[in-house]
Amino acid sequence: MQVVITGGAGFLGQRLARQLLAQGSLPDSTGQLQTISKIVLVDIVAATGFDDARIEQITGDIADSALLERAITTESSAIFHLAAIVSGQAESDFELGMRINLEASRLLLERCRICGHQPRVIFTSSVAVFGGELPAVVQDNTALNPQSSYGAQKAIAELLLNDYSRKGFVDGRVLRLPTISVRPGKPNKAASSFASGIIREPLNGESTVCPVGPEVRLWLLSPRKVIACLIHGYTLSTEALGARRTVNLPGVSVTVGEMVAALERVAGADVAGRVEWKHDPAIDRIISSWPGAWDATRATSLGFTCDASFDDIVRAYIADDLSVA
Amino acid sequence: MQVVITGGAGFLGQRLARQLLAQGSLPDSTGQLQTISKIVLVDIVAATGFDDARIEQITGDIADSALLERAITTESSAIFHLAAIVSGQAESDFELGMRINLEASRLLLERCRICGHQPRVIFTSSVAVFGGELPAVVQDNTALNPQSSYGAQKAIAELLLNDYSRKGFVDGRVLRLPTISVRPGKPNKAASSFASGIIREPLNGESTVCPVGPEVRLWLLSPRKVIACLIHGYTLSTEALGARRTVNLPGVSVTVGEMVAALERVAGADVAGRVEWKHDPAIDRIISSWPGAWDATRATSLGFTCDASFDDIVRAYIADDLSVA
Repeated sequence: MQVVITGGAGFLGQRLARQLLAQGSLPDSTGQLQTISKIVLVDIVAATGFDDARIEQITGDIADSALLERAITTESSAIFHLAAIVSGQAESDFELGMRINLEASRLLLERCRICGHQPRVIFTSSVAVFGGELPAVVQDNTALNPQSSYGAQKAIAELLLNDYSRKGFVDGRVLRLPTISVRPGKPNKAASSFASGIIREPLNGESTVCPVGPEVRLWLLSPRKVIACLIHGYTLSTEALGARRTVNLPGVSVTVGEMVAALERVAGADVAGRVEWKHDPAIDRIISSWPGAWDATRATSLGFTCDASFDDIVRAYIADDLSVA
Repeated sequence: MQVVITGGAGFLGQRLARQLLAQGSLPDSTGQLQTISKIVLVDIVAATGFDDARIEQITGDIADSALLERAITTESSAIFHLAAIVSGQAESDFELGMRINLEASRLLLERCRICGHQPRVIFTSSVAVFGGELPAVVQDNTALNPQSSYGAQKAIAELLLNDYSRKGFVDGRVLRLPTISVRPGKPNKAASSFASGIIREPLNGESTVCPVGPEVRLWLLSPRKVIACLIHGYTLSTEALGARRTVNLPGVSVTVGEMVAALERVAGADVAGRVEWKHDPAIDRIISSWPGAWDATRATSLGFTCDASFDDIVRAYIADDLSVA
């Protein structure tokens, strides 16, 4: 059993690889557990800190078909396609977003089609595919109406993965992720970067700026639950999934004000006091176009699970990622 | 005022060109009428029968960016992007459909972005973007769920045109067309080819095969109304259209059985008796995934109009296209 992870040097890619190394096996398409012999991490830079013979790293441009030919072969049974340009950057650098979020996804699917072995491809989509006038709770049949280039590119890749699956070229699974919180590390160029920063920075003793108002509602999932959902998304049988390859993952619906209140409950008023409110219209425009909740009935019935509360998400960050000074 | 029509040698493209030559002018983006000085027809073959100095023909591959550079310049104020591989052919020749319906659309929008003059781009989409479990009447906010590669490619091009419009690279208008009936000429490789054939062939004294049952419901628009909608779609002010660039055009909702009954009312039982019913599962699968009606309230409020009845559509074909033997 060989696994490919694009964006393999990124935060989710590395964490997924570590989890797969730890568990050591995945079921094949018949449900039989198979030992993982190789995990190929594909990214623009190499991941560091892996000391395992099963890890192979391929660095380069994911939108280069020659690189994809090296990365994906008829032995690649599970392909986690996580490589992406994040929302804020795809908005400011249109060409880069189109090349990585759209063209690389198309080339990856073409590579799979040409290989002809119908691999399982797990693709991460986003709340950003929705926008405009939305119901209070987005439904499975709510129309996509992205209000950012990132959202449009993700929506297009969803359609591609669905059609390549319908044609039998891949066995695709699109997981629409809630916003991930709390990401460890540094702020990034995602419009939603603050959704981690307002928890992470105060817990690390630093002040931070929240660019949207406390009334803004977000749909959140912790990194540990995202990894579990990715692996569950791979594991699901084709029959259980049916014709519709897109699944709205479960999450926790909270306002930004409630997030800071949870931080205060878990870590105290001094920590929560490190959040400074300073409105940023560009970020607010993108974030406010995203749904604050969607109906995850189908995901739940398929066995996907989420965090119990945002307090739990804060505690998970403290347990998994907060380094002791 | 210069106009570009891709698919300009096709049935709709030629008819649109003739209408534009006849009316001689179009409003510019400020609403001022401007004389049409040039109409560039872009297609894989040249259109015949045009004897007008305003017509320029460019033949070649629409998915070739060098050809698009010649066809589209900063002088191209109105671009009607009609070139497409039809549904049945895009399903049987996946690569060709992807290249023309997706890649050429992307390259055309890229060419406009690089030109930088924000032309009005009128793009024709289709009932085929919908599918799966549908409400009896599709609404503006019904989720796209194409069940054919043609539908997926049209849905992707819709998303691209919306995002390029949001970014200000083009002033795009997506018109979702009902199935066009009655097309003149010969059967084509569209799954919906029969929707014209079951009227056209009997009126021309020929027998014809209907591959779906009489209970199948279609959403139809005549060629003359399609041309009027294309020009109206160009003419609409950007303000009237607003942020959502996709319009579900009005149409006539009839079953295939009602179509043949209308043919009998207009042309007699002998003519209608030339329809032979012979089920084709491949065509039925695609056609039955399309909606038989959608809510056209927004289109109607924007001033788009359709035929009054299918009887009128049959009469329009007889008036416009039926050659007297």
